[in-house]
Amino acid sequence: MSKAKPAIPRGTRDFGPAEMIRRNYIFDTIRRTFRTFGYLPLETPSMENLSVLMGKYGEEGDRLIFKILNSGDYFSHRGTPVVSPEDVTKGESHFTSLVSEKALRYDLTVPFARYVVMHRHELTFPFRRYQIQPVWRADSPQKGRYREFYQCDADVVGTDSLLCEAEIVQMIREVMERLGLTEYAIKFNNRKVLTGITEVIGCPGQEAALCVAIDKLDKIGREGVVRELESRGFDASAIAQLEPVFQLQGSLTERIEQLSTLLANSLVGQQGLDEIREMLRYLELSGEVPATLEFDATLARGLSYYTGMIFEVKVTNVQIGSISGGGRYDNLTGVFGLEGVSGVGFSFGVDRIYDVLETLGLFPDQTHDTTQVLIVNFGAESEPHALPLLAQLREANVAAELYPDAAKIKKQMTYANAKNIPYVVLIGSDEIARREYTLKNMQTGEQQSLSAAALVQTLAAADSVTA
Amino acid sequence: MSKAKPAIPRGTRDFGPAEMIRRNYIFDTIRRTFRTFGYLPLETPSMENLSVLMGKYGEEGDRLIFKILNSGDYFSHRGTPVVSPEDVTKGESHFTSLVSEKALRYDLTVPFARYVVMHRHELTFPFRRYQIQPVWRADSPQKGRYREFYQCDADVVGTDSLLCEAEIVQMIREVMERLGLTEYAIKFNNRKVLTGITEVIGCPGQEAALCVAIDKLDKIGREGVVRELESRGFDASAIAQLEPVFQLQGSLTERIEQLSTLLANSLVGQQGLDEIREMLRYLELSGEVPATLEFDATLARGLSYYTGMIFEVKVTNVQIGSISGGGRYDNLTGVFGLEGVSGVGFSFGVDRIYDVLETLGLFPDQTHDTTQVLIVNFGAESEPHALPLLAQLREANVAAELYPDAAKIKKQMTYANAKNIPYVVLIGSDEIARREYTLKNMQTGEQQSLSAAALVQTLAAADSVTA
Repeated sequence: MSKAKPAIPRGTRDFGPAEMIRRNYIFDTIRRTFRTFGYLPLETPSMENLSVLMGKYGEEGDRLIFKILNSGDYFSHRGTPVVSPEDVTKGESHFTSLVSEKALRYDLTVPFARYVVMHRHELTFPFRRYQIQPVWRADSPQKGRYREFYQCDADVVGTDSLLCEAEIVQMIREVMERLGLTEYAIKFNNRKVLTGITEVIGCPGQEAALCVAIDKLDKIGREGVVRELESRGFDASAIAQLEPVFQLQGSLTERIEQLSTLLANSLVGQQGLDEIREMLRYLELSGEVPATLEFDATLARGLSYYTGMIFEVKVTNVQIGSISGGGRYDNLTGVFGLEGVSGVGFSFGVDRIYDVLETLGLFPDQTHDTTQVLIVNFGAESEPHALPLLAQLREANVAAELYPDAAKIKKQMTYANAKNIPYVVLIGSDEIARREYTLKNMQTGEQQSLSAAALVQTLAAADSVTA
Repeated sequence: MSKAKPAIPRGTRDFGPAEMIRRNYIFDTIRRTFRTFGYLPLETPSMENLSVLMGKYGEEGDRLIFKILNSGDYFSHRGTPVVSPEDVTKGESHFTSLVSEKALRYDLTVPFARYVVMHRHELTFPFRRYQIQPVWRADSPQKGRYREFYQCDADVVGTDSLLCEAEIVQMIREVMERLGLTEYAIKFNNRKVLTGITEVIGCPGQEAALCVAIDKLDKIGREGVVRELESRGFDASAIAQLEPVFQLQGSLTERIEQLSTLLANSLVGQQGLDEIREMLRYLELSGEVPATLEFDATLARGLSYYTGMIFEVKVTNVQIGSISGGGRYDNLTGVFGLEGVSGVGFSFGVDRIYDVLETLGLFPDQTHDTTQVLIVNFGAESEPHALPLLAQLREANVAAELYPDAAKIKKQMTYANAKNIPYVVLIGSDEIARREYTLKNMQTGEQQSLSAAALVQTLAAADSVTA
């Protein structure tokens, strides 16, 4: 057996208790919001057949999928060789097809589409699901980019009601509020608006090229986008006509009406604007259009499968990429042979949200999620008192520990501090004699002398473990 | 793009909402118990370096580890070829070493040991962690055996106090009680007792062979075990001396004292019995020795790394393998170069627990975990009433939906039933006129006419979403 210093693969992470408590706080907040809006949980296998994944994420995506070696004797199948030396000369992708038929999930969207198609006869539509699971990408790791990371997706398929888009805005707002985030923008646009723009600038059918170019606006600026458009064959007149799109001003409604004038001659552009108006109407009827909602006619969301409304959330007081995004797709299940199922969904990026909350100091006190009380172990004499008290505390759902050895008090106190345990109980000979125990608040240093029953009551009222 | 009928890999599973709600009920019950006993969450990467995993699970285990193809150009590294046609002729394990350096986690114990060694300078011992994550094994799938399944482990390392073993018994009892299971046995033994037995029957050093043989008692019976022992070189006299071990009778304490007499001349055997007595003393001081706790001198737990107490839990009114097991190990971190760290841990098998609860009809009502109320969509006229009500319900943490389209009432009711939604709200023109809405209980059919505020109050009292 190797005794080399152990390590973990590049781009992966261990999450110790302190990080897990913070991550679970984010997951719980998102999950609770999804549930409040009627989304139910789904989990799909970590492995999918290569045939399900390949060709769904573009050429670069195919390369970034982690492939799994066939199990058992992958060089032969039931005695027949499947690999010969010549196969090595025929290149990697040929060889991969011989020795690998499964791969790790690359996102949660394609497995969801695969699930919907496989279970279409059992599901009742519209089908709302949320899914919180890790995904794997063989990207080169860098700050904030990992090879294993969680996605938190919510999608509804089987309806084209714009109420779903309005609810995405509401869910984003709710998660942000619950996490204590106030400085952010929920940017939105509509792919039909982008199509409309290509029509009115005289470049119909160039939507993909336009999207890729203006998607880089944040990174390369206006001049960069212009150069990118030129290199993609947009002529000077088209680019000039694009100018007003970058110049929209005023309130949400004013910007939309300005664009409506520009897109007067595009039917599809007007459809996109009508969808926007419908979403806003739902938000108004529900109470209000959030002040954080921003119309951004240059939002494109890259080369994705979106066909209608698109969303992206940016935190404005921390330098970081978008922490949530999504949109409507009209043909996600089409690749698996099920046409005509419209859906809309979005996703939260937990790693970025974690970094934002940490930067802004917004994580709540962790003491609620750790052990509530440590009973200091004074050895055999105190055990007949400590153990029944421990059992009573746990019975009352108070997370409690008795230090397992009669170690030095200092060592036991260090343990309580390292674990963020807010209370300790001392059961020395004095305490045993007067049948009351000392409860010490580790934050304030305050001490109380309490009977077992009073002590349990005090701690149970302070906090208890819920599932 | 392939439009072939999609499928999932053999031995893997999708978990739809109904299954997820049931699985989460089991996970939550286990997690809550772990937390009450002071265990904190840990997560490790799905992928580990092959060097961390290989050689830890025996030869068969090595074969069952899912290996991941190196990403990028695995045939070459920075332009230099790493694979030649000749490599194919040198066999699979040679070839694997060239094209794969990572693999999927096979269990949670080795990654935990790896974590403890890597983080030994930051951790405060004793370190208690729980870990609930999937593991992967390239075993041939069959009923109840999957290639991807969850393990739920709790371990404490850095103390040899038998209090930890007593708490394992208590945690098992608590989980069983919370799940409503009453017919089960928590079997235990001690590896030192098994070593003692090999000493007194005149076969010192044969503990591994003895364990492997008697581990099969359930499957092959007493005669089978005898044959197995013969084939492993135990002579007739040794096997005859083993007889009384199978014949222990009476109460827990009586059995232990009978064995104590048999092991009178084995120092290590007496150590094992003292550990058992110490664990029982802790249980007594905590309240009681559970009636479900059974001493089984033939329990061995196969070829594992255990060195002290061992546990196994069987449900007695369902035909199924053990649903929980574990034990103490004195040198788990030794393979990674950290000696002298004693630990003890155990694991719950969620898939088997699921089958047991389903067989016995013990899953609770699912309506608490789904949407609580569906507002039936009567179209544009009702929207100005439905949408504010929807917002108020969600504000009160009631999981609520408005059906997204003005579909036929029957279709909307079918949706509510399929999703197990316990209440629907009807807002027709009558309701709008009298400013009261109809709340219908889908189980009883009972209808109430309520103001928006009263309706929200009624539903919020009935149930609300907690994280």
